[in-house]
Amino acid sequence: MKFCSCCGSSDIEYKIPEGDNRLRHCCPRCDAIFYENPKIIAGCIAQWQGKILMCKRAIQPRCGTWTLPAGFMENHETIQEAAARETFEEATARSSNLELFAVYNLPHISQVYIIFKADIEDGKASSGIESLETEFFDEQDIPWSDLSFPIINETLDLYFEDRKRGNFSMHTGEMMHDHERAIQIVRY
Amino acid sequence: MKFCSCCGSSDIEYKIPEGDNRLRHCCPRCDAIFYENPKIIAGCIAQWQGKILMCKRAIQPRCGTWTLPAGFMENHETIQEAAARETFEEATARSSNLELFAVYNLPHISQVYIIFKADIEDGKASSGIESLETEFFDEQDIPWSDLSFPIINETLDLYFEDRKRGNFSMHTGEMMHDHERAIQIVRY
Repeated sequence: MKFCSCCGSSDIEYKIPEGDNRLRHCCPRCDAIFYENPKIIAGCIAQWQGKILMCKRAIQPRCGTWTLPAGFMENHETIQEAAARETFEEATARSSNLELFAVYNLPHISQVYIIFKADIEDGKASSGIESLETEFFDEQDIPWSDLSFPIINETLDLYFEDRKRGNFSMHTGEMMHDHERAIQIVRY
Repeated sequence: MKFCSCCGSSDIEYKIPEGDNRLRHCCPRCDAIFYENPKIIAGCIAQWQGKILMCKRAIQPRCGTWTLPAGFMENHETIQEAAARETFEEATARSSNLELFAVYNLPHISQVYIIFKADIEDGKASSGIESLETEFFDEQDIPWSDLSFPIINETLDLYFEDRKRGNFSMHTGEMMHDHERAIQIVRY
């Protein structure tokens, strides 16, 4: 942040405001304080005839790798609406029966990842603007070595573990980067 | 937003950027697009000897009414850390055994409310800077007519219903404003 979005001043200071305990961008001219907060990524692990809907990313980062339909939740929608919207935007697929499945913290990038178990009742899907391909995969056909993000592996693992047990439950956990920037997943 | 925080231009346009489908603040001079996303409110419904920890608000809105300790999640923390931090900041109470209890949408104010069931093992609490008083209440002593927000009533209702059933579960729902601005709570 280089300029105050309220008054246009270029004298932005990065400091702890009075009565606060965190660094914020502050404008000494108009006293505006600019807060930044974590963002929610909402999406679906959606099945049709036991196969999982996945999308090959047409955008960076990780263009060309496979992911679950998910993206930034927008203002004035519910998490469920965001997950269904992303599933439609990325795979033109209509999801139903959404149930909360995983709530994972990604504190190193200030994101919270909220995934719903869902059904695509008509089995219809095709590439949205952010996808190169869409496909419903059986477990053994999932492109495990070519997934977009570690949280996608984790979500698929949780799903198939639950399915084998015959009981789906809600999962929470955290994706951490250690000092060597290796990724570590902790299930709470 | 009156000025671009990247280049200081005052020619901010509120329009749908190319390839997007929502109104955003856009800078035609430097092409910056400013996204706004929902915020997470994290908190605890924390018990000690069966009594629930509540705080009398020392700040607006709803100064002087009773609430559960909760507040905006910050960057680079987990939801659980945010909930525990808010419980400490507002009630100087150390929470433990956090379990996800309620995930509610508040789309009219673009918030997602995430509450954890927790324990205050030593029963210690006192007013933090944002509280006038703190108290552990038995169900019958809760100031039901003087709660801060409808979502606080809902959380307490869910908690005591679960406790009576002898089984705590995870709850999802939505708080809506209808056209007359009356509040309606939907449990999913």
